[in-house]
Amino acid sequence: MAKITKVSPLAPAAFPDLPAIDGVRFATIEAGVRYQGRTDVMLAVMDPGTSVAGVFTCSATRAAPVLDCQDKIGGPSDGPAAILVNSGNANAFTGHYGQTSVAAVTQAVATATGVPVGRVFTSSTGVIGEPLPHDRIVSQLEALKAGLSMHALEDAAQAIRTTDTFPKGASAQVEIDGKTVSISGIAKGSGMIAPDMATMLVYIFTDAKVEQAALQQMLGAQTDRTFNCITVDSDTSTSDSLLLCATGASGVDATGDAAFAEALENVMLNLAKQVVRDGEGATKFVEIRVTGAASDTDAKVHGLAIANSPLVKTAIAGEDPNWGRVVMAIGKSGAAADRDLLSISFGDILVAEKGWVSPKYREEAAAAYMTGQDLVIAVDLGLGEGMSTVWTCDLTHGYIEINADYRS
Amino acid sequence: MAKITKVSPLAPAAFPDLPAIDGVRFATIEAGVRYQGRTDVMLAVMDPGTSVAGVFTCSATRAAPVLDCQDKIGGPSDGPAAILVNSGNANAFTGHYGQTSVAAVTQAVATATGVPVGRVFTSSTGVIGEPLPHDRIVSQLEALKAGLSMHALEDAAQAIRTTDTFPKGASAQVEIDGKTVSISGIAKGSGMIAPDMATMLVYIFTDAKVEQAALQQMLGAQTDRTFNCITVDSDTSTSDSLLLCATGASGVDATGDAAFAEALENVMLNLAKQVVRDGEGATKFVEIRVTGAASDTDAKVHGLAIANSPLVKTAIAGEDPNWGRVVMAIGKSGAAADRDLLSISFGDILVAEKGWVSPKYREEAAAAYMTGQDLVIAVDLGLGEGMSTVWTCDLTHGYIEINADYRS
Repeated sequence: MAKITKVSPLAPAAFPDLPAIDGVRFATIEAGVRYQGRTDVMLAVMDPGTSVAGVFTCSATRAAPVLDCQDKIGGPSDGPAAILVNSGNANAFTGHYGQTSVAAVTQAVATATGVPVGRVFTSSTGVIGEPLPHDRIVSQLEALKAGLSMHALEDAAQAIRTTDTFPKGASAQVEIDGKTVSISGIAKGSGMIAPDMATMLVYIFTDAKVEQAALQQMLGAQTDRTFNCITVDSDTSTSDSLLLCATGASGVDATGDAAFAEALENVMLNLAKQVVRDGEGATKFVEIRVTGAASDTDAKVHGLAIANSPLVKTAIAGEDPNWGRVVMAIGKSGAAADRDLLSISFGDILVAEKGWVSPKYREEAAAAYMTGQDLVIAVDLGLGEGMSTVWTCDLTHGYIEINADYRS
Repeated sequence: MAKITKVSPLAPAAFPDLPAIDGVRFATIEAGVRYQGRTDVMLAVMDPGTSVAGVFTCSATRAAPVLDCQDKIGGPSDGPAAILVNSGNANAFTGHYGQTSVAAVTQAVATATGVPVGRVFTSSTGVIGEPLPHDRIVSQLEALKAGLSMHALEDAAQAIRTTDTFPKGASAQVEIDGKTVSISGIAKGSGMIAPDMATMLVYIFTDAKVEQAALQQMLGAQTDRTFNCITVDSDTSTSDSLLLCATGASGVDATGDAAFAEALENVMLNLAKQVVRDGEGATKFVEIRVTGAASDTDAKVHGLAIANSPLVKTAIAGEDPNWGRVVMAIGKSGAAADRDLLSISFGDILVAEKGWVSPKYREEAAAAYMTGQDLVIAVDLGLGEGMSTVWTCDLTHGYIEINADYRS
């Protein structure tokens, strides 16, 4: 099991002050699913009228809780809703026993809280291939219910961590028709892995009122521009899940409201960037801006090819302005590129243009820029109007240590 | 520039004894393109009647010599042919000057050897983005011509290395109609990088007679099963090139001969595996066998997803039988998979079956297996008849050291 020795150097100074969301209460507990001496289960209960939207991993080997959530999203929306998350065991690749565990946990939540079982969503994150000791969770449900509070969002962010080096939260408030609507979200993921794989879990709550179909549509589009634009190592968990819950308790209908949509996207992007900042072994946070591509899709393909290239990532770790590796990554991506129209910048430094090193380029200036902690690599394809921005971190000895040097 | 401190632990004991190929002569020289105190240019001249086939990188940013070779393959085949390769400078991302250099070198080879310029093929490997000092090559051509010998194949394998830790060669001989036909090949690549990216270059020669179109067709199919089935870090060079030259000097027409095709494919696979064995920082050679896929294409997609997964590769480096990461890689590959039909073996040890850990599995046995140097990971999808085998190496601190710890 990977040992977490210190907080990521890219971590924010402190957990943010998240506004409580009217209509949602949280509780956490030490259930001893796998970890000892820390909380490992969180329960959220939402009032009747809450719309729940969700996006999930595209993995063909996704875990039982993910399959259960996918079945339920978009279903009957009467009554209250609940989310239960455990850390320490992913209930993934556990055969038919995985569904048995999900059924046991969701039924227990329904019984304890009065939430219809069709509105109980669960996630599990941690070791895979081991049966989930779901009795340890079931036996804590009365205590969890008794502890529900509007003000336990940071506790929830702590309980869902596996080996993240810091808890992740973000919020926004917007004025709509003279009233304040709040959005608060928490996330875990891409932190150090123990012992199997990083899973990204995200839960976002708002007191705005948004009809479920509209909420789901907005969430899908925004996920493509936020969580689907980050990468640490190109590997995808079997359990990635994002749930967005709109309680409507503010009485403000935010359906189709542009300011609300923007605020929500900002919360998602903030959480997504925090996941990258907790990337395994990360010492640099890198923004890859691609413009001038034949299409937005092509731009994203190029951006992710650069962001996932081990040679680009190790060059960044080595503070080496190795633009040749960026050219290589663009060339291999499969999306349209013309070598002789390509330009590349590191920060404000124009490195290459028209298929060759810029006559103004001085290696010393670029090398000095690469010593920074937050870096921007900009690529212009010179082909069209397509653009995309993706975010990643460097590939360091820390990544190897976390994933190779310790046995599960 | 990466420092090569020692030969890969996966290297063969010695360079093989390659049969000379009637109709091909080689010469090498110290031209000082970039390296000092070692040969860095090789020239091969083939007799009239030689068929030349080639396959090249699919990179959209491929280097000038690659574009020139692609133009010439399949063109007029009268007269002799020549290949000139330099190491130390890739002549890649050098704008229009790149074509100027190729034209200067190919014309000089034509003038010195009498080979038509349309039959002069060149490759360059090394630093990118710097103009090729082609005068240093041009000025050596008379000396190269004077040194041509049938027996300098190992010298040629040495001259084309950048920071490979060992030269790579392989051969085969087959009897056709009572006569012996020989195949000898050399390769460089996937070794340590100095300072930019690994480039794979392969040159294979045979005294068999095979018409160019048939040779090209055979080469393409065999490349898909050999060189396109290996991966070190998923990054693709702008300069990868493979040239296959059939001199016909044996007088034996091998067109359509199954034994010849098999012998050629064995030489290609042998060279491809040597490239993996010289993978940057490699300490384990890994064969990924995928069976039971919906199609051969799907099987290869799964195999490469496993082989390129940083989490799988670091687990192998850590001698951790972490089959959960194999499940993850299959799930993310995009090809068809059913979690509950999947089985996974490490060597002869059945690890997982029907979507869960095998009841017979013992972690200790798998952990002991993982301490070996040559490993086999077998995956059966349980869906169909599709199969593919790919080869890779582990991801170690050595990779990070080579690519991050030294500045170019």
